[in-house]
Amino acid sequence: MNIALAQVNPVIGDFDHNCRKIVESIEKANRAGADLVISPELAITGYPPKDLLLKSGFVDANIQAVRALAAYTKNGPAALVGFVARNEAPVGRLFRNALALLQNGQWMGESYKSLLPTYDVFDEHRYFEPAETANVVEIDIGGRRIPVGLTICEDLWNDEHTFRRRLYHRNPVQELADAGASVIINASASPFSVGKHAFREQLMGGHAAEQSIPLLFANQVGGNDELLFDGASCAFDANGNVVARAKAFEEDLLLVKMDDLREARIEPYPQTIESVWHGLVMGTRDYINKCGFNDVVIGLSGGIDSAVTAAIAVEALHGNAALTAKCSSPRVHGVAMPSRYSSDHSVRDAETLARNLGFDYRVVPLEKIHSAIESELTPHFENRPADITEENIQARIRGNIIMALSNKFGWLPLSTGNKSELSVGYCTLYGDMCGGLAVISDVPKTMVYELARDVNRRSKREVIPNSTLTKIPSAELRPDQHDQQSLPPYDVLDAVLHEYIEEEKCAADIVARGFDEAVVRDVIRKVDRNEYKRKQAATGLKVTSRAFGIGRRMPIAAKF
Amino acid sequence: MNIALAQVNPVIGDFDHNCRKIVESIEKANRAGADLVISPELAITGYPPKDLLLKSGFVDANIQAVRALAAYTKNGPAALVGFVARNEAPVGRLFRNALALLQNGQWMGESYKSLLPTYDVFDEHRYFEPAETANVVEIDIGGRRIPVGLTICEDLWNDEHTFRRRLYHRNPVQELADAGASVIINASASPFSVGKHAFREQLMGGHAAEQSIPLLFANQVGGNDELLFDGASCAFDANGNVVARAKAFEEDLLLVKMDDLREARIEPYPQTIESVWHGLVMGTRDYINKCGFNDVVIGLSGGIDSAVTAAIAVEALHGNAALTAKCSSPRVHGVAMPSRYSSDHSVRDAETLARNLGFDYRVVPLEKIHSAIESELTPHFENRPADITEENIQARIRGNIIMALSNKFGWLPLSTGNKSELSVGYCTLYGDMCGGLAVISDVPKTMVYELARDVNRRSKREVIPNSTLTKIPSAELRPDQHDQQSLPPYDVLDAVLHEYIEEEKCAADIVARGFDEAVVRDVIRKVDRNEYKRKQAATGLKVTSRAFGIGRRMPIAAKF
Repeated sequence: MNIALAQVNPVIGDFDHNCRKIVESIEKANRAGADLVISPELAITGYPPKDLLLKSGFVDANIQAVRALAAYTKNGPAALVGFVARNEAPVGRLFRNALALLQNGQWMGESYKSLLPTYDVFDEHRYFEPAETANVVEIDIGGRRIPVGLTICEDLWNDEHTFRRRLYHRNPVQELADAGASVIINASASPFSVGKHAFREQLMGGHAAEQSIPLLFANQVGGNDELLFDGASCAFDANGNVVARAKAFEEDLLLVKMDDLREARIEPYPQTIESVWHGLVMGTRDYINKCGFNDVVIGLSGGIDSAVTAAIAVEALHGNAALTAKCSSPRVHGVAMPSRYSSDHSVRDAETLARNLGFDYRVVPLEKIHSAIESELTPHFENRPADITEENIQARIRGNIIMALSNKFGWLPLSTGNKSELSVGYCTLYGDMCGGLAVISDVPKTMVYELARDVNRRSKREVIPNSTLTKIPSAELRPDQHDQQSLPPYDVLDAVLHEYIEEEKCAADIVARGFDEAVVRDVIRKVDRNEYKRKQAATGLKVTSRAFGIGRRMPIAAKF
Repeated sequence: MNIALAQVNPVIGDFDHNCRKIVESIEKANRAGADLVISPELAITGYPPKDLLLKSGFVDANIQAVRALAAYTKNGPAALVGFVARNEAPVGRLFRNALALLQNGQWMGESYKSLLPTYDVFDEHRYFEPAETANVVEIDIGGRRIPVGLTICEDLWNDEHTFRRRLYHRNPVQELADAGASVIINASASPFSVGKHAFREQLMGGHAAEQSIPLLFANQVGGNDELLFDGASCAFDANGNVVARAKAFEEDLLLVKMDDLREARIEPYPQTIESVWHGLVMGTRDYINKCGFNDVVIGLSGGIDSAVTAAIAVEALHGNAALTAKCSSPRVHGVAMPSRYSSDHSVRDAETLARNLGFDYRVVPLEKIHSAIESELTPHFENRPADITEENIQARIRGNIIMALSNKFGWLPLSTGNKSELSVGYCTLYGDMCGGLAVISDVPKTMVYELARDVNRRSKREVIPNSTLTKIPSAELRPDQHDQQSLPPYDVLDAVLHEYIEEEKCAADIVARGFDEAVVRDVIRKVDRNEYKRKQAATGLKVTSRAFGIGRRMPIAAKF
């Protein structure tokens, strides 16, 4: 039996596009001699469809799409297609997260997800009723009836190594093994985060080895709003070894010959920092394309954050070649907006970056606008001393300029803030936070530097200017400002933030790990009091295990 | 047996404040001769605590707080206190939504919620494990052991009249009746929406009548971010009639003598439009206070939206007396920011409003700033014709001015957009959308007018200027602009939006109700393409059955 894993990149709710992707996979798999094609979880709707599910007509249209797909299996391989089924039971949630088996032009049957993640970015209990039992389906392959164990994503994640260890009362893989499955199939939409890939393969390989059954994992690829799906679909033999792996961060079709697992292709998975880069490039490209934009606009400060954001945008819109050699990147527009406090090197570094990356570059000076707004506001300030107000005014003029260019030319504005500053509120709401997509808002500052060094290394040239990499970080919103006047050194800050945000540790626990108590309490206070800013932040691409966004739901008017 | 319903207004995560409220209720109930005091759902943490639950130390602190409360029941009534229990079972979610029974200074027992809402604004499966069965607790009152049936909020909402009709496999009230309960207690945090109160009492009265058992409902009151809790705790006799009701939209302690239900107080619940007003005033006041602000700042256009927002703010900060008679409202600051396109009447109407309501008023003209930004940007616009860009530039200058005053003086900025314009994107991101709280962003434009007329009627004077009420709505961002150049008449728009957003109807269904197809398709297209603006909107107070915010989760890069 030959099985093809169809690692496709769907657009949420775009049934035509998503079906076309699956049809193409079926046809390609047919030419490659596949007996069965497996699509990712909810491949028809794209994952996650969120409250589109509640819209009248949405689920009907998705079922109609599955029906139409069946025809394409008439003279080719069977297909397992992820879709939303109606729950026919009289009681319970309206829908099921389901797989349809299409074969010989017919809709042969369906199977449902048992374990419904409802934590972090996941809300599946909001929509779906779980399967009562996991399902072994007999699929007729060349006259043999093969008992296949069907699972969907979380069905494998009842692991004993994470917080999920205690979530679930059931083990679907065990149920399927007990019911005689000769292979376990898992259709997934498993989002990327740093380091997750290795854990995921370990977890899945563990299931295969424990049951002595081969396991196949078909994952979604692509960016859908904040979530990045890394693909890397793979196959495990009955000893739990990876015997096949599809590409990471791009579409792929992986053929696995169950009778000779040694024949399959094993694509490498990128190293940690490179995986973050590829994820951000993919997420940026997909957000731009799926929202229907052609160009992006970025405010350039000469600093590391805007430089890395611009380089990601250039690769997203013009391909990797635009990084490895100087060429033209006309779909990316950079704007330097020097103020009275900007140093010479900031404009110079922005210029160098634009030259290195070949993108459209322009300068809009702030001074005239800044003076005009000052002259109108000063009479209202009652002679109070200058403070954060004056700094924010400049940042918000910049926001207005970027948005004006965005409105006039239809360019998507990319904001450039990193996770460290968004955590402690070292950013201006409606100022540098303006934008449709916050490309690196889940990347800690120390990792932004790593990304910059790594892209220069891989590109074998100075993509990010060396002077940008080496200078002292500054917002340049007042004379002689630099970040470490307001914040602890970034290596300390990022370590404390990791403990507080990703690990959910309290102050005492963090101090116990050796950090200075005053620093820890100050950082935590700043994180807590800036929920209101993050409430209004642009969508940010998730790369860590806990990002700001839909996976972290904090009250604003609160105290703890 | 005398039971007191302690309708308190907690602050999320502020254990000291919340315990003090409960202690005060216990002491007051003791003086009134109560045997038992009932707090609302999760009264210790405030509802909803959201992901604060996941923070290390939060749940421990809440259990510690319950322990400390027990002492206050030593020489007084018993108390049922809403809190978060740890789930002691080895498998399942970490927590339980629970009630603790405190009596004679001891923690006597606890009881858990059975039905966990996971739809709209609710995420309870994210945190809680449901009770396996509903719990009858025997409470010793003056030597008699009274079998009391304990339920928490949603446990009553397995009704047959709404979408929930099919959600739940269990009926906790039936279970409790079967187990011999002589009274049903319901501790709730039931958020307000227009018209819900009547339905809620009908639902609860139905349970009481069906089981022929009296039912007592203790509800949270107050605003927590977007959610407004209206209180109106009440008691039903065994025929399902309301025999006692606490005040709506303010704290109260309601004593119910179970041996003579006729003795209780029945507060009136306000009429529909007045209930919206009170909800908005309460929500605005609570957001200001719970976030630690003293003053607010509002941009005034002379139009109806900013006028109603200002009047709500004045009542929130200075009480209803500030509406019924002219007096001084120094904690509210209004700013008129006329542009070259502003009509004379807009500044005049803003001035009149400020005089009527006695708040601080100032004028910051836009022209100088507007000219300066134009002169810098025009060279970049490549002689393209004026469009929405030029309109947004003005709105964003206004945003910068409001935020500067907010930053300089620590005033909370209130944004003034209504639901109709937020739905179709007739508003400027980072412009008029700037603000910490969007007071009327869930109020359709036609209801904004109703609110204005109603407040003038109730105040027996012209709070909202008549000229503001009667003039043609305009954003005044280009010459001779008015809203109906871009939008259908508001009565049509609001009706279509209601069908699409609150009723989740599709275009065909809405057209079938008699609306013009071109209008319907245009409105739907505008709603869909403006998800990105709403993603970055300020927290808005929820008054309809479906608001933008946490209860409506739409993908942005999507197509349907």
